[in-house]
Amino acid sequence: MIFADFNTLSLLLVSNETAALALDMLTIFGAAKLLAEVFEQIKVPGIVGEILAGIIVGPSVLGWISPGEVLTALADLGVMFLLFRVGLEVKSHELLKLGFNATLVALLGVVVPFLAGWGILLLWGQSQIEAIFVGAAMVATSVGITARVLADMGLLQARASKIILAAAVIDDVLGLLVLALVTSLAKGQVNFLQLGLTAAMAVGFTILVAAWGTRTMRKVIPRVQHKLRVGEAQFAFAMVMLFGLSLLAVYAGVAAIIGAFLAGMALSESVDRRVHDLAEGVSQLLVPFFLAGIGLTFDMAAFARPATLLLALVIFVAAVLSKFLGCAFGAYRLGRANALRCGSGMVPRGEVGMVVAQIGIRLGTISQAVYGVVVFMAVATTLIAPFLLRFSYKGLRGQSEEDEPYSTRK
Amino acid sequence: MIFADFNTLSLLLVSNETAALALDMLTIFGAAKLLAEVFEQIKVPGIVGEILAGIIVGPSVLGWISPGEVLTALADLGVMFLLFRVGLEVKSHELLKLGFNATLVALLGVVVPFLAGWGILLLWGQSQIEAIFVGAAMVATSVGITARVLADMGLLQARASKIILAAAVIDDVLGLLVLALVTSLAKGQVNFLQLGLTAAMAVGFTILVAAWGTRTMRKVIPRVQHKLRVGEAQFAFAMVMLFGLSLLAVYAGVAAIIGAFLAGMALSESVDRRVHDLAEGVSQLLVPFFLAGIGLTFDMAAFARPATLLLALVIFVAAVLSKFLGCAFGAYRLGRANALRCGSGMVPRGEVGMVVAQIGIRLGTISQAVYGVVVFMAVATTLIAPFLLRFSYKGLRGQSEEDEPYSTRK
Repeated sequence: MIFADFNTLSLLLVSNETAALALDMLTIFGAAKLLAEVFEQIKVPGIVGEILAGIIVGPSVLGWISPGEVLTALADLGVMFLLFRVGLEVKSHELLKLGFNATLVALLGVVVPFLAGWGILLLWGQSQIEAIFVGAAMVATSVGITARVLADMGLLQARASKIILAAAVIDDVLGLLVLALVTSLAKGQVNFLQLGLTAAMAVGFTILVAAWGTRTMRKVIPRVQHKLRVGEAQFAFAMVMLFGLSLLAVYAGVAAIIGAFLAGMALSESVDRRVHDLAEGVSQLLVPFFLAGIGLTFDMAAFARPATLLLALVIFVAAVLSKFLGCAFGAYRLGRANALRCGSGMVPRGEVGMVVAQIGIRLGTISQAVYGVVVFMAVATTLIAPFLLRFSYKGLRGQSEEDEPYSTRK
Repeated sequence: MIFADFNTLSLLLVSNETAALALDMLTIFGAAKLLAEVFEQIKVPGIVGEILAGIIVGPSVLGWISPGEVLTALADLGVMFLLFRVGLEVKSHELLKLGFNATLVALLGVVVPFLAGWGILLLWGQSQIEAIFVGAAMVATSVGITARVLADMGLLQARASKIILAAAVIDDVLGLLVLALVTSLAKGQVNFLQLGLTAAMAVGFTILVAAWGTRTMRKVIPRVQHKLRVGEAQFAFAMVMLFGLSLLAVYAGVAAIIGAFLAGMALSESVDRRVHDLAEGVSQLLVPFFLAGIGLTFDMAAFARPATLLLALVIFVAAVLSKFLGCAFGAYRLGRANALRCGSGMVPRGEVGMVVAQIGIRLGTISQAVYGVVVFMAVATTLIAPFLLRFSYKGLRGQSEEDEPYSTRK
């Protein structure tokens, strides 16, 4: 009785929300790092553990955490900072130079999975529009996962890694167009002027920032450094760029994380190492929320019917094979090793495929069961990608790349 | 028409929440840093600008931002990381050594403001219970503001700074007891056993962690460093400590930020510089949300009646004078300069005073007008504190302190 009183008092005295926040932070971050450690000890990529941690603490297994507004925001910030950090390590002229090859990889990586998903769903007896939506969901690559694995292995500077990054950016723009087309179809009207405008805005924004960002920042950052008096002025400026370009990217029709990546790339040749370190701190804290967040959305209840589970497995295999083969074929001219790497790097669908599926649900064009199938595909491709990447980059780890003399300097 | 269609499509295509998040981040962080820069240029502490930025973008002036669940969480995390970072710079044995002086400062800094607030409200003709609540709200010091100002000036290692930090921790425990007493009074029953239990838990937790944390971490951290394989293992471990102790602190009855501070202090003598840098990154990103968040709560509408405005001004002056005189008197034995510094450092009430007022509102014991008065007092004392600190530490800035030979090493 005393203790009950005491608890009531405690709860009144302290801010409940702060305690709940600390508990959520501890649970998700702690579980993610614990599983990452266990997996690293048995030589499995830690990132797999962080995603599985989300499944385990989430509604499907333990039910300790259910995704809410705050956790979603932390996950969104996490993937933004992840891409920003990766952008900081990439020089835009190197990426632009790889444009043709990357475009080829991205194009084939869009067409093949779309056809695969669409075809399988039709064969399975689903409706035309549902088949088109699943095809669209199989298009988008989640560059965050690949970027994180490559960064962990110290291989961001390898040639194949840069092609993957460039291809993932192009993939996002193409994915947007596919989705725009599909959404128009679902509404029964295709407005080509509107589609053209969407395409022009997205492509224009991306090329403009990639081409002009770096040289603009080369002029701006020294001024920031010398004129501003506020503490950590470069970092403050970098954050404004990060949030500003993420927002502009959304207005231009591409994903916020593409804006975050472009912001990092624009700043990569002018900011101090200190900015990298500070951004890395945010990244280290928040990326586990992004990774576990992917796991949190996983819903085992969707697979109560064996037919759904079978479809999920078929779609998963098709998603891996179609993306791998499409992208590898696109990178064929770069040699077998690089083709393998590009194929592996584009496999994870992560959060992007789920966004497509959610739109499908909202428009009422796909069923809950098909939604579950897409989520399974997204999570499973994300879980398998680190293994594929490790395998395809074998032998390159920690070494400088032979054919790219400029690539190992930071 | 085309553009309207286009917008609908864009909004459908991209995650709205991500765009809204990026916009909020850009607005608050951008406004805070912009005003901080403007203020620094005219030699006013930047922290004042960051708090004012919250008032300006908040409901009182522009109305661009209204505090929601996500922004509150970011602000809470911000102040937790601020205190954690400060803890990392403080050695526990130095703080414990100052225990007696700090206790004296804290005690007088609690008694005098309480009597001042209580007396003024009674003279003003308010009810007894309302007077007691305002007195209680005037007790709690917001150590975050002072810590940030001292850290900005590079003066965390000065003797007075350490007394302020130790006194602020003790102040939090005392404030808890005052609040517990006051809450019991509001409910019409005082359970002394319960109060004793609350006190014992809070004091026990704080002393235990302060005394044993450092030596435990000295043994644990080298193992973390050598045995764990996960990337940035020390940082990951530090984060688990931070969230874990913040949570335990709440259970023990003290504020989460006290737990965060104790976590930092426990780790201060064993983690690498890298952990400081990574935590600093999170701190640099999130502290502006804490500071602007204080401004966001400010409500001008409360001062429509001149009598309320007058009371607010009287309470503000009393809050500054009573805390300053009480704490300065408590530190009198340490010389005039240190007494001035301790007096100034304990002035800001920040978010802590507001929590007390919110409990008062929830229990129905204080009116909206008196709530407005407390919020004004909390914000205004927070805005004036940086000036007082700058003045009282004049001449010490950037120098090592003469009477503390060990204090300048990190």
